[in-house]
This record gives sequence, C-alpha cells and structure tokens, in this order.
Amino acid sequence: MSYPWLRSDGRLRHLITLDGIPVAVLNRLLDAAQAMAVHAHGGLSLRERLAGSTLCTLFFEPSTRTRSSFQLAATRMGMDLLNFDVTNSSVGKGESDRDTLATLQAMGVDAFAVRHSRDGAVAALAQAASATTVLINAGDGRNAHPSQGLLDMLTLRQAKGSDFSGLRVVICGDVLHSRVARSDIHALRALGTGDIRICGPENLLPDDDVLAGCSVYSNFDDALDGVDAVIMLRLQRERMTQGLVSSLEDYSRAFGLSPERLRRAAPDAVVLHPGPINRGIEIDPAVADGPQSRVLQQVSNGVAVRMAVLAELLGR
Amino acid sequence: MSYPWLRSDGRLRHLITLDGIPVAVLNRLLDAAQAMAVHAHGGLSLRERLAGSTLCTLFFEPSTRTRSSFQLAATRMGMDLLNFDVTNSSVGKGESDRDTLATLQAMGVDAFAVRHSRDGAVAALAQAASATTVLINAGDGRNAHPSQGLLDMLTLRQAKGSDFSGLRVVICGDVLHSRVARSDIHALRALGTGDIRICGPENLLPDDDVLAGCSVYSNFDDALDGVDAVIMLRLQRERMTQGLVSSLEDYSRAFGLSPERLRRAAPDAVVLHPGPINRGIEIDPAVADGPQSRVLQQVSNGVAVRMAVLAELLGR
Amino acid sequence: MSYPWLRSDGRLRHLITLDGIPVAVLNRLLDAAQAMAVHAHGGLSLRERLAGSTLCTLFFEPSTRTRSSFQLAATRMGMDLLNFDVTNSSVGKGESDRDTLATLQAMGVDAFAVRHSRDGAVAALAQAASATTVLINAGDGRNAHPSQGLLDMLTLRQAKGSDFSGLRVVICGDVLHSRVARSDIHALRALGTGDIRICGPENLLPDDDVLAGCSVYSNFDDALDGVDAVIMLRLQRERMTQGLVSSLEDYSRAFGLSPERLRRAAPDAVVLHPGPINRGIEIDPAVADGPQSRVLQQVSNGVAVRMAVLAELLGR
Repeated sequence: MSYPWLRSDGRLRHLITLDGIPVAVLNRLLDAAQAMAVHAHGGLSLRERLAGSTLCTLFFEPSTRTRSSFQLAATRMGMDLLNFDVTNSSVGKGESDRDTLATLQAMGVDAFAVRHSRDGAVAALAQAASATTVLINAGDGRNAHPSQGLLDMLTLRQAKGSDFSGLRVVICGDVLHSRVARSDIHALRALGTGDIRICGPENLLPDDDVLAGCSVYSNFDDALDGVDAVIMLRLQRERMTQGLVSSLEDYSRAFGLSPERLRRAAPDAVVLHPGPINRGIEIDPAVADGPQSRVLQQVSNGVAVRMAVLAELLGR
Repeated sequence: MSYPWLRSDGRLRHLITLDGIPVAVLNRLLDAAQAMAVHAHGGLSLRERLAGSTLCTLFFEPSTRTRSSFQLAATRMGMDLLNFDVTNSSVGKGESDRDTLATLQAMGVDAFAVRHSRDGAVAALAQAASATTVLINAGDGRNAHPSQGLLDMLTLRQAKGSDFSGLRVVICGDVLHSRVARSDIHALRALGTGDIRICGPENLLPDDDVLAGCSVYSNFDDALDGVDAVIMLRLQRERMTQGLVSSLEDYSRAFGLSPERLRRAAPDAVVLHPGPINRGIEIDPAVADGPQSRVLQQVSNGVAVRMAVLAELLGR
Repeated sequence: MSYPWLRSDGRLRHLITLDGIPVAVLNRLLDAAQAMAVHAHGGLSLRERLAGSTLCTLFFEPSTRTRSSFQLAATRMGMDLLNFDVTNSSVGKGESDRDTLATLQAMGVDAFAVRHSRDGAVAALAQAASATTVLINAGDGRNAHPSQGLLDMLTLRQAKGSDFSGLRVVICGDVLHSRVARSDIHALRALGTGDIRICGPENLLPDDDVLAGCSVYSNFDDALDGVDAVIMLRLQRERMTQGLVSSLEDYSRAFGLSPERLRRAAPDAVVLHPGPINRGIEIDPAVADGPQSRVLQQVSNGVAVRMAVLAELLGR
C-alpha cells in the first residue's frame, strides 16, 4: 500500500497519518524540526518564511494545549492566525464539516490544523479540500495524532541518535483508545525500530493489525526490561466510569511508572508522556520531574515539529 | 431624509445601515472592495495600510463566521486585533453597553465591528462613540447587516456588471426576521435595481415600508420567472418551535430552491445565500454546489468588502 | 522585611505585589508608564521593543477587561500573544497549575499575566518559574492586583503631581474583599502619601495589619472631608446573597458617591474606580461621567502601565 498523501514531487500534501509514511519524508521532517528547535525561540529570521499565509486551528473537539502549540508555531513562522472554535460556531446551526472547511477556505485560509472526535474525519476533509489548501491532522478519534508522533520521534532522536534499529521502546497504558500510541507505532515502524513493546491491561489493547510488528506484554516489569525509552500514555479518568479500569490504585500498581520500576530499564533510558500528566496515577512525580524525563522537551519539540510541518506543506 | 452617517467631506463616518446610503458612496465602497478582492489573498502590500490601528470585534451575540471574516480583513490590512466576547465579560456583571464601548475606546481601540441582538443598538452606540472611533454594524437584530449587503452587491456586480437598472432579483425566505434581506433591499434600491422581488410565507414577510419598491410574491415559481439572481435566506430552525413554519418538508416544498425550480430563472442566473446553508431545506445541495452558485464567492467577497470598509472609515 | 522580587541589579524580577516595593522601583515604573502613555496609541516605534517575545495571558479566573488590557499592551510592544483559557484547558483534566505553567514555558512563552482566585497562587507559580520567565500578577484572590495599583498611582500623579506627601486619599467600599484596595494601599504607603483614609461597612473592612498607616472611617461624609482623591470600589452583587450587605439601597445611601457628597472633598478632587462601574450603586452616573472622574483615564493608563511593566521585566 503506497502512502496516499504525497505530491508528485515527493513533498507532503497533507499531514494526515504517519501510517506508511516513507522513511525519507519522515527523516526530512525530523531534520527540519531539529533545525527549527535550535532557532525557534527568540529568533526573528523565520518570520518572513510563511508571512502572508494564514493558519486556522479548526477544532471540533477542544484542546487548549495542542491548539496553543500550533498557534505559536504559526506565529513564529510569520503566519496569520484564525482560531475557529466549532462549539460556538454555525456548526451548532447544522452546517456540515465540509461546508465549514469550504467557507474558511473561501476566506483565504491556507492551512488548517484540524482536531475531530471521529476516526478518519480529517482524511475525509482533506479529500474535500481545494488544490492549494493543506491540512494537518491534530488528532482524530483514536486514529492518529501525527504531529505528536513526530515530536516523540524527535525527542527520541535527540536522546538516542537517528539510528533506531537497535532501539528498544515500550509504550504503556490505554493503547486501545490512544491516537498517540498509534502514531508512535507508525513512526517507530517507519524508522525501523528494533524492538517495539506494547504494554497495558488486556481490555485496553487494540486489535492485532494495530500491533503488527510489536511485542505485547501484560506485565509492565517484564516490558521494561532493558528498554531505552518508555512512552507512558495518559489514563483518561472516564475509563473508570466506563468500567474499563477497576480502580486508579489497581491501575497505578500494575501500570504506573515509579522510580523503582524505572530501574528495570537501561540506566540511560528516557521517559516520555504526551501530557497532561496524571501525577501519581500513570507516572510518579519523582519520575516525571526526574533526570530521565523528557516531558517538557517533548513540549518544546512540539512547536518545532509543527513549524517544520507547516514549512513542508506550504512549500517554503 | 438625508443619510446621517457621512462626514462633512462625504466620507463614511460609521457603517450602520445601507438604508438611504448615497449611490456614490456605495459604488466607491464596491470599487474599493473589488480592488481588494484582486489583491487581498497572499499580498503583503496592504499590510502597511492600517498598521498601528486596532479593530475590536465586539459581539453581544455570537457569530464565529462573521467575526472571522472581520478578523481576517483587519489582519490583512495590518491592524491589531482584539476579540471581545461579551458573554464572558463584565457585561455579565451588569456593565452597560456604552460603558463597555467607552472602556475599549480608552484602551486605544480605533474601530469596532459590533453585533447585537437588539434593533438599533449599534446606531445608539455609534452616537455615543468618541470623535475618532468608527463603528461597523456587524448585524443588529432584524434591522441591518450592511457589510453582508455590500458583499452581496459585489457578488452581483461581478456576475452581472455594475448597471443594476435592468436587473431582476428575487429574495426568498424568512424576510421578516432577516437583517440580510433588509440590507440587500436597501442596497438594491440605492443601486436602482429594475425589479426587486420578495417571496416567502405570508406570515414571514415584513411590513409594507420595508418592502417599498419591491414586488411581493407568495408563489416561488412565479417569483423566479426570468430572474437574473436568486438570494436565498437561511431558515432558522427556531421558526418551527415558534410555530411560524408548519414543517421543514412543507417549507422546502414551497420555498426551497431545487435544480428544477432554478430553471425558471434566466439561464445565466446566479444563486446567493448568506450561509450557513441548511442543505435540503431552503436550498438543494445540487444548487448550492452547482455552477450557478456564488455562495463561496460571497464568502471571499466578504473579506474584501470588510477591508474596503475599514479603509474608508479609518480614512486611509 | 526586604522586597523579594528584585534581581541583583535592582531590576524587577516578577510583578507579584506592591507590598514593600522600593519607592525608586515604583517611581521608575511610573515614569516609564508616563512615557508610554504619551507614545502608546498609534505609534509604531515601540513595536521593535519586545518583538519576538511571547506573552501568555494565563487566567484561572475570567476577566475580559484586564486580559484585553494586557493583550493590547503586549501587541503594542510587538510581542506575540497566547491566550490560555484555563476553563477550556487540560487543567479541567486535573493538571496542576505548575504543570500548566511549565508546559507553556516549554513552548517558549517568555512572560505570563496570571489571574487566580486563590491568594498567593501567583507568587507560588513565580517561585516555580524558570530562570528566564517573568510573571505579572493580574490579580490573585483578595491579595493583590499590582498593575491596577500602578495605574491608579499614575492617574493620581497626572492629576496631583509626583509628591504624594501632602495628598489626602480615601478608598471607599468593600475593602475586605478587594485586591485593588490592597495594592492601592501598598502603593500609597510606598509613595509616602500623607493621609490614607479607608471607609466602608464595618463587616467589609480587613484586619488591622492590612490597614496599617491608614485612618479608618465608618461615615463616608466624614471620610470625604477635604480629600484630593476618592477611590471607589466596585460592590460585588454576591455580597448581597452572602448577607454581607442588607440592601443595595442601604449600601448606596451610606457609601455611594453622589454629586452632593463629592462636594465635601477638595474642589479639584479626582474620582477613580477600577471598573466595571455599578451605576447608581457605589457611584452616581453624574459623578462617573462628570469632570472630576478619571475612570476612563485609568483604563488608558492601564495599557501604558502594562507596557512599562513588560519592558521592565523583560529587560529591554
């Protein structure tokens, strides 16, 4: 299956998913993001880069953090910004998602960062977009969150180098509902990661096709053995009310990352988490704030990655 | 009755209504907007035009679409932006509208785009504004929405030329509650439109003085006969719960624009709708997305018109 | 007790409180704000000053007015803006205030204007901030609102000159719950104000340590006698439902500022109010809109003060 989101010249047309993304494209984005990460903060030299273009954050599901990251990325590239909060919009008046997109396109928006609660919704909108409009999937249902996948890979590269073939990585938590986990798996596979481990409660693991190429663990201690990186997932508290998790205490005991447990990983292992953190549930504060944590570096990398993606998509 | 919103030098002081606007002023705005429409998107040359001035979108009634259009227009002219969401503001603490305006003026806001649910509220605020502040009515009650009227006229001009004397236009729908219809009628009258037809359910038509100079039709098929342009109005779903419309099916059958019905108009007739569209109610998707539709061009023209209005009011 | 918020070079590190602020620092800020007030509106020369820096308005409690003032101040200094509305954010997902701050810091935010409902919350966040991040307390509980204190002092200085030693000032209203009153008292004390009078219902006065150096009055007529300035406080309507005020009529009769009552002050006395005004409750419209009112000048000064504070904190 070839990756459908490329232009004829090999440049990315939209960023919808990392599933099947050619490794050359992935590495080009990570190289560009690394350069952005060095120059991003404080420098004004990038302001001319995308000046006159407009980014609209079109969020059908609220997320202040991710939206802020896109906003800052666009601002630092000199773009104009439009925040379109769908909960207050005419969508509430029955307008279709496609009509909302078409309307904003007609106003002269060049790029959209779209978040949606439905799997595949952003891909569908991308199919409907005009020839010059570019879309970035800022998270759709449990399907994909590719800019998060990219920033996780950038963070791993900064810690461990760009050869992923010998890397042992474990992703732990509610993988079933996690678009972050899916995009990380896609990216790790594309980069040829040697050992991808998935760990979580059995009822919170997805189907086999999602987990292709991964080893599955139900015991977190076993999964941690000798790994170079631990990617912890956020436990949504609604899993409790849905009866998918018996208690926070039980969950934390089985799948929380404590300093003791982290000692099972390689001594220089790094710890990632997409945030916001549930301190004391999936991650112990001593780990989150400890020397192996890369949580805040992930946040910084998030802005750099989104700058690089905007530059790639808008072709400048 | 002379038009009260002009300066002594003939320039527009505020944009409150198109009712009674001198045709020379109207045409000057449309000429400027046409020039903006050509250069608006992507060009940076307009950025210096209003740099250092501030637009505040002061919305006492929510509307993400119209607010976004004003935001983008101001941004493309180099203005600073302030979005003042009254539902979260001190107005909830009992502050008067005039005090809110005076406060924002004191902060250095130069121009306001004001939406309000009460007829005449924006005119009253304009009377209270300081000598250097300009106001744009972004819709007040059922009274007026002059920038929408302007963008509709720009769209008609682009399709049919600037001589409106031979033009046959029908406006169809809930005219009673529509500020768009009123501003369109004002503008069509000012431009000397040969044949202005109004069509809708009898209980959704306004008083005779609103309809002065218009022919009234209760049968949409008759009203469409040979027209050059069809302006469809949005049916607010609340008209159902208010008992003003018996059923959406009945309404659609009598006043919806289908491809068959559109054939009664001139072959090159254009179709306008202020959006957001209720697909399948007042307009058939095949019409909305068809070659005669100008719905998205209206949206693009909306940004250009608002740029032109800001330039006229701020005198640069 | 030395003031803890200074750098070793004497420059302000954060703006958390005016309590104990050295008079030299206070006067430097007021001098800078006075210069901003002259040049602020319309001039583009300040745009280079803080270009490339980012201000985040981080409001854990809503306030459209204060946030707008900070936004405009930052924009006029050329800063990038991020509005972080905590009610829609991951804080709702259980993230701690400190993690929210750390996340936004990691995105490259340089300065924060923080409002919080809890006394001391902003000071606590400042302790947790990174070495290069600066915080401005935009109001914490009933504790402090230092930029309001500064703008009130700037307004008094413009009216009465910079020597406060002979000045008689009365602050009237619900002092107990007022962070504005506290910051005004701190500033008036620092500037060596000759006569600081506090007036309000006995059950709405704070403890003696807050009132140190002030004379307390329960009769407003007595308190007004010969004063040069009257600072009226807003009466929160919730004081009624809390049973702290028997009726608005009683309150207004005892502590409202009428034109008759104002005649007890010096003939050239000025009247201040932080806004939004409860017309007819704590202040008569004839006073609020009269020649002695400085209410709108306070608002204008608010933007200038915040520009000066940002320049001081960011060191440019």
